[in-house]
Amino acid sequence: MRVSNRAQVPPFEVMSILDRVAGLRAQGRDVISLCAGEPSGGAPIDVNARAAAAFANGDDLGYTSALGLRELRDAVAGHYRRWYGLAVEPHEVAITTGSSGAFVLAFLAAFDAGDRVALASPGYPAYRNILTALGCEVVQVECGPEHRFQPTPELLEGAGPLDGLILASPANPTGTMVSRTELTALTDWCRGNGVRLVSDEIYHGITYPADRAGLTGPDSRGVCAWELDRSGVVISSFSKYWGMTGWRLGWALVPADLRTAVDALAGNVALCPPTPAQRAAVGAFTESSYAQADARVASFARTRAVLLEQVPRLGWGPVAPADGAFYLYAGLGERLGRYPDSTAWCRALLEEAGVAAVPGSDFDPARGHDYVRLSFAAGPDAVAEAVERIVGFQGG
Amino acid sequence: MRVSNRAQVPPFEVMSILDRVAGLRAQGRDVISLCAGEPSGGAPIDVNARAAAAFANGDDLGYTSALGLRELRDAVAGHYRRWYGLAVEPHEVAITTGSSGAFVLAFLAAFDAGDRVALASPGYPAYRNILTALGCEVVQVECGPEHRFQPTPELLEGAGPLDGLILASPANPTGTMVSRTELTALTDWCRGNGVRLVSDEIYHGITYPADRAGLTGPDSRGVCAWELDRSGVVISSFSKYWGMTGWRLGWALVPADLRTAVDALAGNVALCPPTPAQRAAVGAFTESSYAQADARVASFARTRAVLLEQVPRLGWGPVAPADGAFYLYAGLGERLGRYPDSTAWCRALLEEAGVAAVPGSDFDPARGHDYVRLSFAAGPDAVAEAVERIVGFQGG
Repeated sequence: MRVSNRAQVPPFEVMSILDRVAGLRAQGRDVISLCAGEPSGGAPIDVNARAAAAFANGDDLGYTSALGLRELRDAVAGHYRRWYGLAVEPHEVAITTGSSGAFVLAFLAAFDAGDRVALASPGYPAYRNILTALGCEVVQVECGPEHRFQPTPELLEGAGPLDGLILASPANPTGTMVSRTELTALTDWCRGNGVRLVSDEIYHGITYPADRAGLTGPDSRGVCAWELDRSGVVISSFSKYWGMTGWRLGWALVPADLRTAVDALAGNVALCPPTPAQRAAVGAFTESSYAQADARVASFARTRAVLLEQVPRLGWGPVAPADGAFYLYAGLGERLGRYPDSTAWCRALLEEAGVAAVPGSDFDPARGHDYVRLSFAAGPDAVAEAVERIVGFQGG
Repeated sequence: MRVSNRAQVPPFEVMSILDRVAGLRAQGRDVISLCAGEPSGGAPIDVNARAAAAFANGDDLGYTSALGLRELRDAVAGHYRRWYGLAVEPHEVAITTGSSGAFVLAFLAAFDAGDRVALASPGYPAYRNILTALGCEVVQVECGPEHRFQPTPELLEGAGPLDGLILASPANPTGTMVSRTELTALTDWCRGNGVRLVSDEIYHGITYPADRAGLTGPDSRGVCAWELDRSGVVISSFSKYWGMTGWRLGWALVPADLRTAVDALAGNVALCPPTPAQRAAVGAFTESSYAQADARVASFARTRAVLLEQVPRLGWGPVAPADGAFYLYAGLGERLGRYPDSTAWCRALLEEAGVAAVPGSDFDPARGHDYVRLSFAAGPDAVAEAVERIVGFQGG
């Protein structure tokens, strides 16, 4: 039997690292994992309480509308008023099965096979892999330290004719953000060139505005693309700011011309997002839940400060400005030492020093071979200990 | 901005009917809905108890492996031993986000754009729409009452060169099943012709074997395609037999040659299935949960008997043999009366008599214009009252 060509998706190195971490821990080894793309601590109390109540009360957990419960769409619309002062109508909100579900629906609705869609490299590999599986031509825009790892109209001009642009701010793996001025330049350029913007805003709210000029005041949680132009798709999620990774719940703000298509596609591809998670997630928008999420962000900020203070000891560079999210992306430079690439370096670091990090080639196949991504979601003590181990590993 | 061509998915008529049912009920009208593709009553007690405990205990609800929790994959493997006497290894089981998630992964892994994939018409419209969105060529095999609405090797021989076959037994909307002999002929034909079989078995266990020769004894819950040949993909779900529609949890049995592809695709397209649902669903395989699910099937059987006894009064024909699932699919024949098609007939039935049914064109665009699908998940009293109303409507 034949296997499809489009199924030849490159595996994530991070998955085999996670397996190896589990194996080492099972042997009793003390391993610090800086791999995780998820915060610890779980969902806010009000979310768990609503989930528990739904089961205790025997709430209807059957199918919802394909685009989600009205009550939750209302609550998401309210979130845009609260954070951005933005008027969003509930019918403009599509609740989705994680941001992953939103990406699949947005890509299907906006792009045909053969369409050319640009994204920053380094970037989240699933964008590239989903687009490829759907037959789109992925145009990787090399965004290095000189561009703060984000695309610009000038870089896009050099990419040939485009149908779409995927933008992430804060970005994974770099954490870098675009300011209102930079985002305005990009939305203007997209509109002027008939390019559909898909704006990944899943790390909004996990930001460190004190360290980044242009992201203070109302822009401190990230600038929403819909503040500037409503022809693009905005994608967000309960996974990161609210710590609900495994619940698989996200949403999209869908422009008017894509709404019929997204609705019909959602009903066919997913039927509806998970109902228990939808009923619970209404509790994410209480004062208490925002306060708990903000407290976790403050904890990330403390860990980040520990890490940034120690980075000079590591002798790495360039180091991406971690404006948001919970990642540090850095070139190893001469610290790569005797290893041919950061994949080998990361394997050795794990085996010899018990620290798990992700090699940059997962995020940038062309130029990531000497970069690494560290997650600082593990907390200040783990990060401080990891730095000591890395220093020892590099000195050895 | 452009909308993709592949997003031009036809809307389900059933969605607008469900909206109209909600609207009429909001006006105080007494509407009997025979639309629903979901059983009432919800999940088994042990599933809800495990869900409640997961929240109460603060269980880890972060990402799982892309193909699901090992504990749940073990439990699904055990289910195949229990029902089919079939040895399935946990690594052959992929837990998915509903059967919908399994179809997307199976189609991406097995078929490229341009591949020709056959399916029975009438059939579940999402197969057709997902395949079309993914660029496959859908080959609709017209399976009428003379073939019990199921494909045969002879019908497939007439369909030109094929890359895949989607088979559903029990099928939606017809409820008809293939026997072991018929399924063997189909798996043999697929293997002999290099055609990848995707076997939809989500209605297994909801069967009425007393009425169908060849489906007694060990075959009474449906024959699993892997009993005959392991080169195809078997897809199933917690939604129907266990009544967990909104939880969005299903699974696939993945043949060896597709396993790497399905794993990599799942990580990119979905990250993982919903974790709270995975933790709870382990409770679906207790004696108590099987007993509750079987009791619900016995209740469907009583409602089905009521409906089949009354069908002659309706004057419909042909009527599909409802071997399984909870649907009756029938031609209206002369009872279409003054209406141009069953879509108009269904609209009038809803407005005038307060009974919601689904027109056949949702399932068979070419020949379903004078068919209807009734769900008997609503229970015997609702179905008996609906029959009286339909008799009155047709007589008026």
